[in-house]
Amino acid sequence: MNKDIGLLIVGHGSSLKYNKELVRSVASEFSEEFENVEVGFLNLQEPKIKDGIDRLLERGVSKIVVFPLFLARGVHTLKDIPRELGLNDGESKGKITVDGREVDIFYARPIENDKRLAEIALDRIKEAMS
Amino acid sequence: MNKDIGLLIVGHGSSLKYNKELVRSVASEFSEEFENVEVGFLNLQEPKIKDGIDRLLERGVSKIVVFPLFLARGVHTLKDIPRELGLNDGESKGKITVDGREVDIFYARPIENDKRLAEIALDRIKEAMS
Repeated sequence: MNKDIGLLIVGHGSSLKYNKELVRSVASEFSEEFENVEVGFLNLQEPKIKDGIDRLLERGVSKIVVFPLFLARGVHTLKDIPRELGLNDGESKGKITVDGREVDIFYARPIENDKRLAEIALDRIKEAMS
Repeated sequence: MNKDIGLLIVGHGSSLKYNKELVRSVASEFSEEFENVEVGFLNLQEPKIKDGIDRLLERGVSKIVVFPLFLARGVHTLKDIPRELGLNDGESKGKITVDGREVDIFYARPIENDKRLAEIALDRIKEAMS
């Protein structure tokens, strides 16, 4: 666990509560790996992405890993979130300056294709038929 | 494998290609469990949900399991997709009639919170920092 590194989990946001609950649940799974974990939403819900960044900076981190909790790359992960972060399109690493402080940003890819995703899907399908 | 059952994987759809690629990849994982698998998109891409249903019916199935490849419940999974399927809000099972044929629909829940989802997220986070 490195106190210098913060983790920001970014969610889409929703007019209902479920997206936020999921983002918070996933974030809570990382309390062993990261001392500083925050969430931020692109749309419709608070805290916003910039709020999450600000909260991590208040805790003194100098590096932030941003994980977009989205299924696939798309306009949100490739354009909208990088813009909020102050990264250029397509950048997965970069430096941003917030209130005069320079911060390293590491921008992860979303879930994408993964055998475990298909395993979860199969469980849901079996459950629906039972 | 039961020839009488069809699987429909429903995706959000996107103006970019990645959501469709992911939905197709996940669908391809079920060729052992299901002889009849189709995909359908809510927005922006073809085939639409109704096209997927029609394709399954052309293959002679009398039951269709619908899996929404979405991270969390929300307006899309609770309202928009059920409406396309001809289910009432909140129904996870129902009968629909298409061109005079009665079909049983089993509507699965989306991915939602799952340990394997957090495991994938941790892999993406580690990859971004490496």
